[in-house]
Amino acid sequence: MSETTPTWILTATCPSRLGTVDVVTRFLFENQCYVTEMHTFDDTDNGNFFIRAEFRANEEAGTDERINAEQLNETFAEHAARFDMQWQIRDTRTPERVVIMVSKFDHCLQDLLYRYSAGQLNIEIPAIISNHPDLKELADWHNIPYYHFPITAETKPEQEARVMTVVENTQADLVVLARYMQVLSDDLCKKLEGRAINIHHSLLPGFKGARPYHQAYDKGVKLVGATAHYVSPDLDEGPIITQGVEPVDHSFTPAKLAAKGRDIERITLFKAVKMHCERRVFLDGNRTVIFQN
Amino acid sequence: MSETTPTWILTATCPSRLGTVDVVTRFLFENQCYVTEMHTFDDTDNGNFFIRAEFRANEEAGTDERINAEQLNETFAEHAARFDMQWQIRDTRTPERVVIMVSKFDHCLQDLLYRYSAGQLNIEIPAIISNHPDLKELADWHNIPYYHFPITAETKPEQEARVMTVVENTQADLVVLARYMQVLSDDLCKKLEGRAINIHHSLLPGFKGARPYHQAYDKGVKLVGATAHYVSPDLDEGPIITQGVEPVDHSFTPAKLAAKGRDIERITLFKAVKMHCERRVFLDGNRTVIFQN
Amino acid sequence: MSETTPTWILTATCPSRLGTVDVVTRFLFENQCYVTEMHTFDDTDNGNFFIRAEFRANEEAGTDERINAEQLNETFAEHAARFDMQWQIRDTRTPERVVIMVSKFDHCLQDLLYRYSAGQLNIEIPAIISNHPDLKELADWHNIPYYHFPITAETKPEQEARVMTVVENTQADLVVLARYMQVLSDDLCKKLEGRAINIHHSLLPGFKGARPYHQAYDKGVKLVGATAHYVSPDLDEGPIITQGVEPVDHSFTPAKLAAKGRDIERITLFKAVKMHCERRVFLDGNRTVIFQN
Amino acid sequence: MSETTPTWILTATCPSRLGTVDVVTRFLFENQCYVTEMHTFDDTDNGNFFIRAEFRANEEAGTDERINAEQLNETFAEHAARFDMQWQIRDTRTPERVVIMVSKFDHCLQDLLYRYSAGQLNIEIPAIISNHPDLKELADWHNIPYYHFPITAETKPEQEARVMTVVENTQADLVVLARYMQVLSDDLCKKLEGRAINIHHSLLPGFKGARPYHQAYDKGVKLVGATAHYVSPDLDEGPIITQGVEPVDHSFTPAKLAAKGRDIERITLFKAVKMHCERRVFLDGNRTVIFQN
Repeated sequence: MSETTPTWILTATCPSRLGTVDVVTRFLFENQCYVTEMHTFDDTDNGNFFIRAEFRANEEAGTDERINAEQLNETFAEHAARFDMQWQIRDTRTPERVVIMVSKFDHCLQDLLYRYSAGQLNIEIPAIISNHPDLKELADWHNIPYYHFPITAETKPEQEARVMTVVENTQADLVVLARYMQVLSDDLCKKLEGRAINIHHSLLPGFKGARPYHQAYDKGVKLVGATAHYVSPDLDEGPIITQGVEPVDHSFTPAKLAAKGRDIERITLFKAVKMHCERRVFLDGNRTVIFQN
Repeated sequence: MSETTPTWILTATCPSRLGTVDVVTRFLFENQCYVTEMHTFDDTDNGNFFIRAEFRANEEAGTDERINAEQLNETFAEHAARFDMQWQIRDTRTPERVVIMVSKFDHCLQDLLYRYSAGQLNIEIPAIISNHPDLKELADWHNIPYYHFPITAETKPEQEARVMTVVENTQADLVVLARYMQVLSDDLCKKLEGRAINIHHSLLPGFKGARPYHQAYDKGVKLVGATAHYVSPDLDEGPIITQGVEPVDHSFTPAKLAAKGRDIERITLFKAVKMHCERRVFLDGNRTVIFQN
Repeated sequence: MSETTPTWILTATCPSRLGTVDVVTRFLFENQCYVTEMHTFDDTDNGNFFIRAEFRANEEAGTDERINAEQLNETFAEHAARFDMQWQIRDTRTPERVVIMVSKFDHCLQDLLYRYSAGQLNIEIPAIISNHPDLKELADWHNIPYYHFPITAETKPEQEARVMTVVENTQADLVVLARYMQVLSDDLCKKLEGRAINIHHSLLPGFKGARPYHQAYDKGVKLVGATAHYVSPDLDEGPIITQGVEPVDHSFTPAKLAAKGRDIERITLFKAVKMHCERRVFLDGNRTVIFQN
Repeated sequence: MSETTPTWILTATCPSRLGTVDVVTRFLFENQCYVTEMHTFDDTDNGNFFIRAEFRANEEAGTDERINAEQLNETFAEHAARFDMQWQIRDTRTPERVVIMVSKFDHCLQDLLYRYSAGQLNIEIPAIISNHPDLKELADWHNIPYYHFPITAETKPEQEARVMTVVENTQADLVVLARYMQVLSDDLCKKLEGRAINIHHSLLPGFKGARPYHQAYDKGVKLVGATAHYVSPDLDEGPIITQGVEPVDHSFTPAKLAAKGRDIERITLFKAVKMHCERRVFLDGNRTVIFQN
């Protein structure tokens, strides 16, 4: 198998029940799909089952054309229905389409764009949206369309409609709030549920709300961190994807804490975006199930 | 499902091939085994496949007696043969039997015994073997038989024979060298292949051989660590299971480095023993495949 | 200089002002004290200055008797008064006297006792106090007096008086709450201010109050931690000394989180006790200044 | 004191002796220098003393002009001579001048330039030198002169002379090899001793030489790392400044290890450059003394 052999990812979730693993693995076997990586998890508390399988065409079987995505989908749909599965089969040759929203801070955007251009993220970025013009030059350098949509309390509904139009027109799979600094309306949160990731500049639930680094300084904490989570109508409360943390000491002023924090925000947001785009993250109520490797 | 529902672990490895996952999952399904956790890995470089599944009896099916271990083993043996699988089905109600070997240092032994008595390890300890009498009192406190087998260059073969007799008589699944400080003969290494874990007081392959903390001090390293690995005839070279690391600075004398190192050794050895006993570690040539969760 | 050369530690804090460093270093120089390690910190926000110096007798000067502690104290007292310093000169040959309070959980006590017997803490333990009899056997093994003082809502004042009597009779420098599980009265907190350390089984301020691991589970956090802090009348709010943290995932039930947490509690409490006893921790309002090395 | 109050850094090293601390602190006091941070270290093994003090003008004294750098230097020179001190007093308003050398890999350069433009490094970058033209566009974007000096075995002496000319003409304080991929000649190493930092793509001394990630893969290590060190004629052997490390598992191919490694290289090199430019790093034979805070 070469590095460029096409691979697919099947993800599914359904109520816990005997046979949930078998229905997937049998389907893959019968369709000559060679499994290269598989994870399952059974949340016995909530009775939810999760599975993720990476596979490729079986090489002995001949050509890659053996895997007919359309036919696979049709075939699996029947099996999945019997288990009330929510599922998807994804061809990894199609990059995820990610719209990034920013305000004036550039550190998260810089990092995402660097990793994007270095090939570390299997994504396309059809749009960067901001309520400020400041980061346009950076977007231009990467040849990415930049939408400057200013926002005020009065124009918020209208501005969010413009945002949503870009999201729809670009057929975005994911929206990343890379320090966007604006609270989304409940309505927009709902529309983007499960496909919008925020970076919170703190270890949740430690320091919600404004100026978390000043809060951290006042409390004299010895660790600072950041939290990447899905956006939810409850501000600072969406399902957590990943968290980063670093030690600090008494010499860290709020400004130094913030600088350290920005480093953690960058890597934490990147990790969350990468795991989401590799279909490793599942929603399980207000928690997430994550199949790393 | 209660916390005490009996669970089994099926582990298997075989040459990579279409159907390796299916043969396991279909078998489990057909035998009313409810999968709670599953991992697979396909080492495409070496063409080796690895799978680990935890399962319990399907509750709807009635009683736990539905799982008849003997019958399961018989049934799976046929399937496994078709894939040249090395495999095992393990009832987790039977603790692993672990023999610990020590010299005079007690830090690793103390930690293992603490975790054993705190119920963190699903093991029995039928014997502690040492070439010194020093740690007998500690073994007594935990009501574990202590075998004092002194060793010299001349008596080494004889001493190792006595060690092996204890290993066999206690039907040990695993031998843990918890800072045993003696090099095992090639012969003993081979006899214990894949079932003897050593803690090396260094980040391998950084500082092999004697006095690694003095070596580390001389090099002025800013990190020290420890490595838990399977014993092999090549001293300091067996397959690595896990490694721990901590930052240090210029103020660390060799003595301080060693003290820091002992803390890392304790937790690193514990993690390796725990993962091994949970059947999460597979040998893959000179490397290991580890299914954590 | 041999490893056993006697060393002293001078610690001082005072309002920020020109000359605060000089008054200490000049004093040491003029008294033939050879400085081996020195740290200072100037908290410009609050206008507080902190200094810690380790020193030994100057070897060229002749014998160790050169350092006459009584005379040093007398001499420095005059200098310190000019700067409104709170200060102390400590002979490290005199171990700190540490009283440990526990309930039924033994993991923190086990670790402290192990490190104490391994010589990792320069302390004496004149008493272990508990509201339960369970850990007496462990205390006996280490030849440490065990005081069983049961407590109820009604007998709390009386019980705390008995505790305080032991603290006073043993001339304890420090009280360590090693998972004591009882809230101290405001009165006792005040009496022990700055010399009582608690281990909070959570990353403060994330999960205050009861059952933090259940709280953490419900929130689906990806990191768990523990916080060692000085006891204060505001429960869960005293100045933080150090915090530990480890990654977790969706497979961690509250019970598994608690087990992971206990490991973090052990090492975090040990680190706090060690730093306190080495006079590396200073109170700075609700924060701490810590001179690690 | 405002954030913009000018500060100075005094660093000094000399043979260990009574009075080494006093001579510095008394000098600062007598010259109305207000110390905001101070560290000392006495390497008793080698008999070397190290001190670093940050200070500003005493505010009560009137204006900042009170600190006359030229006069300070003159005055201290006399004191320092009595102790055979190597020393420097640095005005932090003058950024360090850093020349960066690269080959084709851009990840370290990208990160340094991002942090430079974000104000995280108190430096100027008067030149980027490369043996390839690839990264010129990136340099242009940041308005930094880019010198393309190709190299072959034959032209090496001549090329290094051109490099040295740029270093001299730009009055560089530091040369950073940000994955330069060329071995410097002994001669150039000596010329740049103590002021050239390299990032080694491995945890030294684990995997010296070529293709460390392939070596790491073959050994099946569970941790990968990177090492920032001063350049020395012994390739891969110069004094270590800092090291970074991350856990990996069996699923990491050499390519994935390298990707993970690049992330570690970026942050590790940045930390080393920052500490060096803040005058926190001292050479102590083949080791370094580092005063972090």
